[in-house]
Amino acid sequence: MMPTPLSGVVPPVCTPLTPDREVDIPSLVRLVDHLVNGGVHGLFVLGSTSEAAYLTDAQRRLVVETVTSHVSGRLPVLAGAIDMTTPRVLDHVREVTAAGADAVVVTAPFYTRTHPAEIARHYRVIAAHSPAPVFAYDLPSSVHTKLSPDLVLELAADRVLAGLKDSSGDLGAFRAVVTAARTRPDITRFTLLTGSELVVDSALALGADGAVPGLANVDPVGYVRVYDLCAAGDWERARAEQERLCALFGMVGVGDPARMGGSSSALGAFKAALYLRGIIDCPATAEPQVPLSEGEAERVGKYLAGAGLL
Amino acid sequence: MMPTPLSGVVPPVCTPLTPDREVDIPSLVRLVDHLVNGGVHGLFVLGSTSEAAYLTDAQRRLVVETVTSHVSGRLPVLAGAIDMTTPRVLDHVREVTAAGADAVVVTAPFYTRTHPAEIARHYRVIAAHSPAPVFAYDLPSSVHTKLSPDLVLELAADRVLAGLKDSSGDLGAFRAVVTAARTRPDITRFTLLTGSELVVDSALALGADGAVPGLANVDPVGYVRVYDLCAAGDWERARAEQERLCALFGMVGVGDPARMGGSSSALGAFKAALYLRGIIDCPATAEPQVPLSEGEAERVGKYLAGAGLL
Amino acid sequence: MMPTPLSGVVPPVCTPLTPDREVDIPSLVRLVDHLVNGGVHGLFVLGSTSEAAYLTDAQRRLVVETVTSHVSGRLPVLAGAIDMTTPRVLDHVREVTAAGADAVVVTAPFYTRTHPAEIARHYRVIAAHSPAPVFAYDLPSSVHTKLSPDLVLELAADRVLAGLKDSSGDLGAFRAVVTAARTRPDITRFTLLTGSELVVDSALALGADGAVPGLANVDPVGYVRVYDLCAAGDWERARAEQERLCALFGMVGVGDPARMGGSSSALGAFKAALYLRGIIDCPATAEPQVPLSEGEAERVGKYLAGAGLL
Amino acid sequence: MMPTPLSGVVPPVCTPLTPDREVDIPSLVRLVDHLVNGGVHGLFVLGSTSEAAYLTDAQRRLVVETVTSHVSGRLPVLAGAIDMTTPRVLDHVREVTAAGADAVVVTAPFYTRTHPAEIARHYRVIAAHSPAPVFAYDLPSSVHTKLSPDLVLELAADRVLAGLKDSSGDLGAFRAVVTAARTRPDITRFTLLTGSELVVDSALALGADGAVPGLANVDPVGYVRVYDLCAAGDWERARAEQERLCALFGMVGVGDPARMGGSSSALGAFKAALYLRGIIDCPATAEPQVPLSEGEAERVGKYLAGAGLL
Repeated sequence: MMPTPLSGVVPPVCTPLTPDREVDIPSLVRLVDHLVNGGVHGLFVLGSTSEAAYLTDAQRRLVVETVTSHVSGRLPVLAGAIDMTTPRVLDHVREVTAAGADAVVVTAPFYTRTHPAEIARHYRVIAAHSPAPVFAYDLPSSVHTKLSPDLVLELAADRVLAGLKDSSGDLGAFRAVVTAARTRPDITRFTLLTGSELVVDSALALGADGAVPGLANVDPVGYVRVYDLCAAGDWERARAEQERLCALFGMVGVGDPARMGGSSSALGAFKAALYLRGIIDCPATAEPQVPLSEGEAERVGKYLAGAGLL
Repeated sequence: MMPTPLSGVVPPVCTPLTPDREVDIPSLVRLVDHLVNGGVHGLFVLGSTSEAAYLTDAQRRLVVETVTSHVSGRLPVLAGAIDMTTPRVLDHVREVTAAGADAVVVTAPFYTRTHPAEIARHYRVIAAHSPAPVFAYDLPSSVHTKLSPDLVLELAADRVLAGLKDSSGDLGAFRAVVTAARTRPDITRFTLLTGSELVVDSALALGADGAVPGLANVDPVGYVRVYDLCAAGDWERARAEQERLCALFGMVGVGDPARMGGSSSALGAFKAALYLRGIIDCPATAEPQVPLSEGEAERVGKYLAGAGLL
Repeated sequence: MMPTPLSGVVPPVCTPLTPDREVDIPSLVRLVDHLVNGGVHGLFVLGSTSEAAYLTDAQRRLVVETVTSHVSGRLPVLAGAIDMTTPRVLDHVREVTAAGADAVVVTAPFYTRTHPAEIARHYRVIAAHSPAPVFAYDLPSSVHTKLSPDLVLELAADRVLAGLKDSSGDLGAFRAVVTAARTRPDITRFTLLTGSELVVDSALALGADGAVPGLANVDPVGYVRVYDLCAAGDWERARAEQERLCALFGMVGVGDPARMGGSSSALGAFKAALYLRGIIDCPATAEPQVPLSEGEAERVGKYLAGAGLL
Repeated sequence: MMPTPLSGVVPPVCTPLTPDREVDIPSLVRLVDHLVNGGVHGLFVLGSTSEAAYLTDAQRRLVVETVTSHVSGRLPVLAGAIDMTTPRVLDHVREVTAAGADAVVVTAPFYTRTHPAEIARHYRVIAAHSPAPVFAYDLPSSVHTKLSPDLVLELAADRVLAGLKDSSGDLGAFRAVVTAARTRPDITRFTLLTGSELVVDSALALGADGAVPGLANVDPVGYVRVYDLCAAGDWERARAEQERLCALFGMVGVGDPARMGGSSSALGAFKAALYLRGIIDCPATAEPQVPLSEGEAERVGKYLAGAGLL
């Protein structure tokens, strides 16, 4: 049973892999325990930070089943259904809800040349067939389309969407949705989550329900603290804690840009941090990502030490 | 058995759908016959024009099996293995080669933030595991990365890639690959195909082996004629025929841009044309594409009439 | 004499035009009085909202001279020096400082294919020749390059830059600069201004010195109120006032997107609002912008009425 | 007096600079002589290859006056009027035509957020005020907008535009304009020039009138030979010559991408080549471009030697 709206910290759960790139179940279970013990309010599997784009269908299924069965209803589990278009997304929706997900998280179509009318149609068809609530996932850096506030609000008013995970980085546009959703009588219990690591306090201050920060894998307690301080109206201490997390987030830049892309660096850093903290057994990322060098992994350790986590 | 290099016209085969969006097998078989009878030299299934991005895994399998079994070795069948990253592409490679494809066609990673070193790694891993030759598919409008000539040539020299399908629209960059592949002693029998509909004669004139024009679904005879005229060095008549096909290609713009995206319009027009020519039973495109209106479909008919095809 | 850092509300002053598109001096003076009486803390002329990109060199000079001589030192006047590359920007720097500007605001090179090393060189050469402090103007929507926090901080530490106007919309990246500038001992008195209309309260809460909101032309009192409430730590009322201004900002969307671009619509709306409020004599925007229709201008009036400004 | 259409090779003339970045008049005159003696059919000053974006207004004027007075009507001189919007472009149009230019070359508005209707308006206003014919300059890599074939043809039919310089790299779209301009009775004597260095033979084969290749600064004789061979229908030898020039064009990549942008590398290479060939006195490029290293300049020499030019 998922609260509506869902609020709090909902980490996009990393997917630990073995050295031969299979899902590492014991590590995944330990990671989930680490997050739950850290006080998070929900879990989001098969998001970008989970390397959903890199996992095969079999691996995706295994991840959802592992997490939902381990969590066993103690907190809600959202699952990404990440694929190019409506028919392919619908297959994933069927799989992840059969595996126990409480809600599905869906981007606009990508790879194809799309149009706002087609994006609306996409969400309407998916919602009509999904046994679980549908969240829109606004991720222009991957999808190459920004969901407009007007479109999100139209789909919220029509009960097509149950929520929004905003990873656009455009806080002004997000605020337009937040404010309208709080004031329009035709929109109720719509969940508004920011995907930012860096301005969680700002997003909560302007009315967001919660956050889905990838860095919460590494420091769930820190983000829960930000959330609690904001809920208590203690903005000054929330800001200080957020700034500590911003400094920690610097780890995403350890990878040499001459040698690897931003995903290899950021996801490599998160996994190196989880490995260094003893939570997962192996820091491997999925192919074709480039592994961090030893020196780069050591710099991750310095970020952890600087944030008091090692 | 596929010739190396593969030359001639290799249409990206449309995927006819029933009104309820299932693969229409009888129409697909008729379409293949129409193309084979038109004199084409190979078939490319599960490309962009095939709506690969919209087809479920089950539909993709059905398409490949249907076409390979119907063609039965009379001409080579290339199949797209279109997905976001290496592990997911590898699953498709397994499926389509098991279903009889003679070669696989693979883009760079997309949706993720990638890097040239990761793109090279992607193709190397895939080639190491693929039972069939691997073609690179350069499609920046979908993938948001351009394959550089240097990268393609490195992978060609290392026998990672067997060919390139260039849909970048950048004939200058394509020429860099073509010329190098013709002159470098370490690159042999590398297939170079343009994905353009509009400059097939130009691409052949500068040394390409063949073309993969979506519009060849509608008029295979026309493109085969361009190819034959170019092969005979009759550039003047090749140009005239190419210009006739350019005029016909205008059909991709029939869809109202206020109502639909470019994919809905172009693929809708190709399917409307195949329907009007009596080759397929239903012009439906996959969700969430917006169907052409009656008036828009009529304009497709005028393009056919103008090109002497109705 | 400009305070360092400069704080408060610094509107990018609209440039009123006559019906035949000359600078309307009496209207410009009235607009400046309206802003000064509204309590703003500085003025920014020749920015994007000022239509700097549309003004000839003679018009630019006239604007700076008019404003600096009218203001006469009562509050600081910053001036844009907007052009493609270093030598052309230097010409504008000479002009606007000769005309009395207290600081110059400069983007990265645009139109050309540039590189971070060239952007650094650009600012270093300009600072070496400018008689007034140089602010960086981060405006990726126009310049097609984002200034990285590391680059800005390097130039701040080296006293090349005196401040940053951030119109990137990326509050997370802005925060990285703000936090570093507040804590690094080698960076002092660096001015940090957000160009946002929509999250001024958020930017101030995380440590920005002030804001440069285009909408402050229409409602300077509102933005000054947001600033004062934030300075007093009254975040709840600041948020309410900011939300009122967000609603008012909706006016930028009145122009029909089938008929005009975003600049015609937004600048057209600001000028229509100033005209309706009786501050300027003519709502004309510069060529080739498309004027608002009568109905669109009426909708601007409704936004004003909704915000209690008419 | 300019022929209509203008045909042949029309190099975008580099602007030689002294070590302290002033226009080097004697070198410019020698460069013009080198081009005229090479057999070119016209000159294009103040284009991208001329570093127009880097030249001050005074330098621009000096360049046009120097070239037009030296050429003295022996061949047509086109001049760029490169700026952000209509009013600023009009100032340049006035200057360059007063300085003797036979035609002006104008891009769509840039830096601002624009719209097709505004681009049309831009060209109509400029043509209404220009004493010389107006050419559209399609350069999406700088302008971030592509001129659609339909828009160009509408403006050609209305006699707003006298020609098109297409540097979009999209030969398919260029062909749409070329073919329509050749066949539509309402469009006559419209000049169609490709800005490509790499597919001049292809562009001429499909009906272009001529080319504006930056590399023709270095090897005007080569491009004139391509033009003459194409005019004679000797496509095979034209292709061989074009391939020699494509190899020579490799020089644009000598600059280390970790240290400089594409403009520094390409323009630096052209100027290094002109310097090494003894045509200009100094290879300096304008600020903030990064100079080639000694080793990089040596590699330019190897390209020259490889093409038989040293």
